[in-house]
Amino acid sequence: VVEIMKNSLSISPATRLCAVIGNPVSHSLSPALHNAAFRALGLDFVYVAFRVEDLRSAVGGMRALENFRGLSVTIPHKIEVMNYMDEIPELDRAIGSINTVINDDGRLTGFGTDGPGALKAMTDAGVTIDGAKVLLLGAGGAARAIAFTLAMNSSLNRLQILDINEPMLAGLVADLRKGTGAKIGDSLLTPGNVAREVSQADIIVNCTPVGMHPRERESIVPQEFLRSGQTVFDIVYNPLETKLLTDARRMGCRVISGVEMFINQAVLQFELFTGAKAPVDIMRKIVLERLGK
Amino acid sequence: VVEIMKNSLSISPATRLCAVIGNPVSHSLSPALHNAAFRALGLDFVYVAFRVEDLRSAVGGMRALENFRGLSVTIPHKIEVMNYMDEIPELDRAIGSINTVINDDGRLTGFGTDGPGALKAMTDAGVTIDGAKVLLLGAGGAARAIAFTLAMNSSLNRLQILDINEPMLAGLVADLRKGTGAKIGDSLLTPGNVAREVSQADIIVNCTPVGMHPRERESIVPQEFLRSGQTVFDIVYNPLETKLLTDARRMGCRVISGVEMFINQAVLQFELFTGAKAPVDIMRKIVLERLGK
Repeated sequence: VVEIMKNSLSISPATRLCAVIGNPVSHSLSPALHNAAFRALGLDFVYVAFRVEDLRSAVGGMRALENFRGLSVTIPHKIEVMNYMDEIPELDRAIGSINTVINDDGRLTGFGTDGPGALKAMTDAGVTIDGAKVLLLGAGGAARAIAFTLAMNSSLNRLQILDINEPMLAGLVADLRKGTGAKIGDSLLTPGNVAREVSQADIIVNCTPVGMHPRERESIVPQEFLRSGQTVFDIVYNPLETKLLTDARRMGCRVISGVEMFINQAVLQFELFTGAKAPVDIMRKIVLERLGK
Repeated sequence: VVEIMKNSLSISPATRLCAVIGNPVSHSLSPALHNAAFRALGLDFVYVAFRVEDLRSAVGGMRALENFRGLSVTIPHKIEVMNYMDEIPELDRAIGSINTVINDDGRLTGFGTDGPGALKAMTDAGVTIDGAKVLLLGAGGAARAIAFTLAMNSSLNRLQILDINEPMLAGLVADLRKGTGAKIGDSLLTPGNVAREVSQADIIVNCTPVGMHPRERESIVPQEFLRSGQTVFDIVYNPLETKLLTDARRMGCRVISGVEMFINQAVLQFELFTGAKAPVDIMRKIVLERLGK
């Protein structure tokens, strides 16, 4: 009974609101995740989900509604929302998208926690990033966040990026060369290039949607190019273990599921919302329960 | 345990938000009241409080945030908020203020529940309004709401209004004569006029703040002019029983506390928010607990 009572929400005029905004948001795990964490720490917060089309008005409303403390921002608003911030850190400006908004008495600051969440997933797994040769598969939004975070927060040996979209790839590489001191390489995502780059990499990060439900049998990386000693990180978390990770595990690689990035980006959001250390184990438990593990 | 579990909030992406906006809102009873009612009926709603200065942006935000279902609007925003509605019923336009906003997929409708809440408090107490001589003390915002509601919803014998503010009184009387068919009289709120009008009234409604904490020893109506058979309704609810009501009870009048109007305006808001019949007894219990009875 005590446990249940502790976990029930008691809402007062002081209760602070956080929310995920996006379109759609009807399948978001974030309300369950953040509310469980608020309750576990006894914090006077509540978290809901709002489908949003008119982003400017939604963010203007948040600014005007005292007690509306934080936003998780998801597709399709992660780029446009930057226009309505008072402040965005340099790293997140360079990445070009944010997923978190913090409201300090009407002053809005935007942050991205996808890149730091990915970095934390890797360091928590014991991966050494300094000195590593990192291969990113994909040059889209998630790849941008991870590439900039790795390039600015560590001393990589080199960062190689592959994509099938040449202009997007060239844009990311040019931005990274301008914004960071990291050694950046790129090539088109062809079977030959994949084979060569995978065999040379210490850490392989799949930032493409390949392998995601319902195409669970797909993988960009042929199993035979993987070897023990490599780390393979797939940002896809549905399924929890993609074909790429199953293959990598079979070949003796260290594997990291996208669910760890998902959990850690939420952990970092929670800490920005509340200023409290997030109850990571409870948050992981909720996510794994909801994802059916 | 079952009772506690039933009463704990479970928030999902479908959960709808309601809130009170005002300035200040830090002492609002509304979050406790509406959340208890949502839980009692197992409705997927949550209610918070937002202090608001920039009302236009706050309401624009509500419109843009799907799942933001309803607002209770309190001082100082009950008049200005009308500017941002898509629709307001004629009665509420005539009253000139609203205290409730309903968001139907981005279309905002404003309502006032103070007048209907007062009317419901009277009819619930068994008061016959048709044919009655009603005396309103005060011509401010609450008096306007009650005067229009009574005048438009019933067949009064007459409605007499007293105030010390002659222009405000004249304005209300002119609006009532233009907007309703009721027989309206007015005079300045002087001791002589109070004595005469109180002795002639069937129902006396105090719509002034006289008698409110910390001036609990004050009353506009000298006890000796009250008599058994009259109904005395005081919209003040802090204290729960004002000096006016104590005097009236002593003289054998039927008495109605402002807390019944407060509960009923919230009941009507709850029904607009949810479409469900409000759990009135639970709401009354919460309000009386919070007001220290």
